[in-house]
Amino acid sequence: MRTVDIAVRVRYAETDQMGIVYHSHYAVWFEIGRTEFCRAAGMPYRDLEHSGIRIPVIGLQCKYRRPAHYDDELTIRTRLPELSSRGLAFAYDVLDPDGQRMADGETRHIFADAQGRPTRAPADVVQTLE
Amino acid sequence: MRTVDIAVRVRYAETDQMGIVYHSHYAVWFEIGRTEFCRAAGMPYRDLEHSGIRIPVIGLQCKYRRPAHYDDELTIRTRLPELSSRGLAFAYDVLDPDGQRMADGETRHIFADAQGRPTRAPADVVQTLE
Amino acid sequence: MRTVDIAVRVRYAETDQMGIVYHSHYAVWFEIGRTEFCRAAGMPYRDLEHSGIRIPVIGLQCKYRRPAHYDDELTIRTRLPELSSRGLAFAYDVLDPDGQRMADGETRHIFADAQGRPTRAPADVVQTLE
Amino acid sequence: MRTVDIAVRVRYAETDQMGIVYHSHYAVWFEIGRTEFCRAAGMPYRDLEHSGIRIPVIGLQCKYRRPAHYDDELTIRTRLPELSSRGLAFAYDVLDPDGQRMADGETRHIFADAQGRPTRAPADVVQTLE
Repeated sequence: MRTVDIAVRVRYAETDQMGIVYHSHYAVWFEIGRTEFCRAAGMPYRDLEHSGIRIPVIGLQCKYRRPAHYDDELTIRTRLPELSSRGLAFAYDVLDPDGQRMADGETRHIFADAQGRPTRAPADVVQTLE
Repeated sequence: MRTVDIAVRVRYAETDQMGIVYHSHYAVWFEIGRTEFCRAAGMPYRDLEHSGIRIPVIGLQCKYRRPAHYDDELTIRTRLPELSSRGLAFAYDVLDPDGQRMADGETRHIFADAQGRPTRAPADVVQTLE
Repeated sequence: MRTVDIAVRVRYAETDQMGIVYHSHYAVWFEIGRTEFCRAAGMPYRDLEHSGIRIPVIGLQCKYRRPAHYDDELTIRTRLPELSSRGLAFAYDVLDPDGQRMADGETRHIFADAQGRPTRAPADVVQTLE
Repeated sequence: MRTVDIAVRVRYAETDQMGIVYHSHYAVWFEIGRTEFCRAAGMPYRDLEHSGIRIPVIGLQCKYRRPAHYDDELTIRTRLPELSSRGLAFAYDVLDPDGQRMADGETRHIFADAQGRPTRAPADVVQTLE
């Protein structure tokens, strides 16, 4: 299955008083991952929104395996395990420079129109993502 | 099962360009929920940390059922479905003023020492949370 | 000068690895302060936006005098030192439970329309805020 | 004066319901700017902290000149206009791909020890940053 990698460097703002990355920020990194996945597929998410399509998140899960720290250089590896005209699911691995998995997770989305109502994605959107 | 409620009002900073709350912020609301759960149980999380115990998040899941908007007054309802000396799980509902469920989720945690190593919780901590 | 107070409790998510509140979050607390200022003046900011008016931030300054910590209960005290049909400025104090000032700051805003273009505020908006 | 550039791409999480970047995130971008400034000077901020030195923010100001949008590629340009053994100030420009200034700002810092108490920076730290 196609995977797309993007690097992120941990920001000081993303740490908490435990000295590790606060767990909600992985959801933001996942968003960066799917942004790059769409761009690599030739369909930047920004353009998708301009065309009137949204892909709001309806589900999120994440497993935190090893803590990440300030200034770490991590890789977000994204793939698209599920896709239909109704919605899609992305899966993510967060990797350290040695390729060890720090965390992994999944987001589930529906296709929606500009008013947030569920809709079917145009055929060319589905084809491009496939 | 004991539940503890805490109100949150949606901040402008928590919205995104879809005009709804960005999904990662629910994880922060869940943290507010478990902070109040521990306080209501007589064991403020701040004191727990001062005594050398941490409860880092090892798993997160959330289902987003209805979008939340700026200035909404929501209730975070928290319960503790799992507890052992090794770790625990909190479950959460996000409710609107009519009691309708906007989202629900769960976090899983281990007990750890100040260096982040897995540890067993002292018996009195487990008893207090029970 | 009229001041409006609102309480905030420091979230774990707002701390950083120095063990104190990360400095950007004060800007979010200021936003909570002006939200409550507008509500107390009888003009909820949510309604203002629905009427087509925006007050984007064009300037921010903050002085950090004493660090804030997780679970602290703070008061955001907001006033409106400048107001014209073109724009306005809010000023803020962040106070601890003893009334000691932890931080203070200011935001400057213009009135803008729904497309973000500078505009004059309707006379009733200016009167209500006065 | 030496300047150091670092690119940031606007995250969806950084937008708000006005459809532009929420203003507090510029403070986070400034932090990325000074992290890269220190790295370029041969003194990664991570190492500085490991040696027991902190540079907490005591003042922040920012002027927002043009709104930034999701997926924009911006440059954070950082310089160090003030430096003594007691503290320092960084200045920042946020530039779009054409070199137009979107925002600019400044942060003021003291040197502090691991407990957050004001301290004098070791001579080699000051020399390296000069």
